Amino acid sequence: MEASREAVVDLLGVLAYGELIGFERLAEDARLAPTLADKAELARLAATEFSHYDRIAAHLAGMGVAPDEAMAPFAAAIDEFHAATRPGDWLEGLVKAYVGDGMAADFYREMAVAVDPATRAIVDEALADTGHAQFVVERVRSAVAADATLAGRLALWARRIVGEALAQAHRVAVARPALARALAGGEGDVAEFARTLTRLTEGHGRRMAALGLSA
Amino acid sequence: MEASREAVVDLLGVLAYGELIGFERLAEDARLAPTLADKAELARLAATEFSHYDRIAAHLAGMGVAPDEAMAPFAAAIDEFHAATRPGDWLEGLVKAYVGDGMAADFYREMAVAVDPATRAIVDEALADTGHAQFVVERVRSAVAADATLAGRLALWARRIVGEALAQAHRVAVARPALARALAGGEGDVAEFARTLTRLTEGHGRRMAALGLSA
Repeated sequence: MEASREAVVDLLGVLAYGELIGFERLAEDARLAPTLADKAELARLAATEFSHYDRIAAHLAGMGVAPDEAMAPFAAAIDEFHAATRPGDWLEGLVKAYVGDGMAADFYREMAVAVDPATRAIVDEALADTGHAQFVVERVRSAVAADATLAGRLALWARRIVGEALAQAHRVAVARPALARALAGGEGDVAEFARTLTRLTEGHGRRMAALGLSA
Repeated sequence: MEASREAVVDLLGVLAYGELIGFERLAEDARLAPTLADKAELARLAATEFSHYDRIAAHLAGMGVAPDEAMAPFAAAIDEFHAATRPGDWLEGLVKAYVGDGMAADFYREMAVAVDPATRAIVDEALADTGHAQFVVERVRSAVAADATLAGRLALWARRIVGEALAQAHRVAVARPALARALAGGEGDVAEFARTLTRLTEGHGRRMAALGLSA
């Protein structure tokens, strides 16, 4: 079932705020980079998030919705997620960028099936941009290869990021039932919601394996 | 006279570092924005600076020069410029973005006459992107119209930004004589250098007038 207009505005609002603040946090985390080349790679991820924000905001405006108003209901949850997951060093910043980018991409894929074609085009554009984070995999794998004690610390860190993301997602789902229904297969189907969670968890497991960390 | 390869690498290096760190500082200053729409506008300026960095770095790499190495000689001067001009509030951030963007554009125009066609194409692309800062003019003018005491404070602030930029530019010119010669008309011509400074000062005066501030 196609999502209601209310649910689509919520979806675009939460994505827009996530991309805009994601831009800001990645740009700040880029300051932890050990080299200018590394800084530029994280800055590239940040600039990509801004371009996603820009397209989503334009689409909202085209629907007659002010982007600020669509984003406002989700500011507290996303701000608290970032406050609880502030990287302590460059490697934690990389893991957060990779895990966060991957969760966002999975979320885009889940929502793509629930929305109208115009909204889906935005989603497809955003998905086409993923993969920039591949440099993260190389950096983290080589750091873990050089210092095995890092693996445990970074695995714990990744679990904290996912835990905080799920906690805030739960909070958003309770506050925005139309959005939660749209993401749970249109009818609030419990079995479908469980399958969605399973897919998201599997995606996270694949990313952790790519980083050389245990999920 | 066309600039030497050494001077071109220096020009691209100082521009690349300026754009990369400009991205980082604008992204940080965007956090001072009073609304999400304002935050997005400053984030747009930051993303544009990153795309300039990206093109310059690719051009350096094409010349067989590692961007990091080309940028390194200019890091201290640009870092100190930013450390001395950290905005205290949103309006100071806007004035810095506008004055800095304008100075960078003027600098691009000056260097365009001194370089080879391939380098000039980079410069032209960067110049084509200017004008995004126009929203700054509206924000600053309306703030000054609403509170006349702001005009004096922001005019002083703009003068400090220009003063710090000139101080660091002087430092760079002393340390990198090939670059200084290229920007002074190829031969270190004192009269040409004075004309360059006059043009840069005139450009600043026009921008201050646009903001409704005295230069």
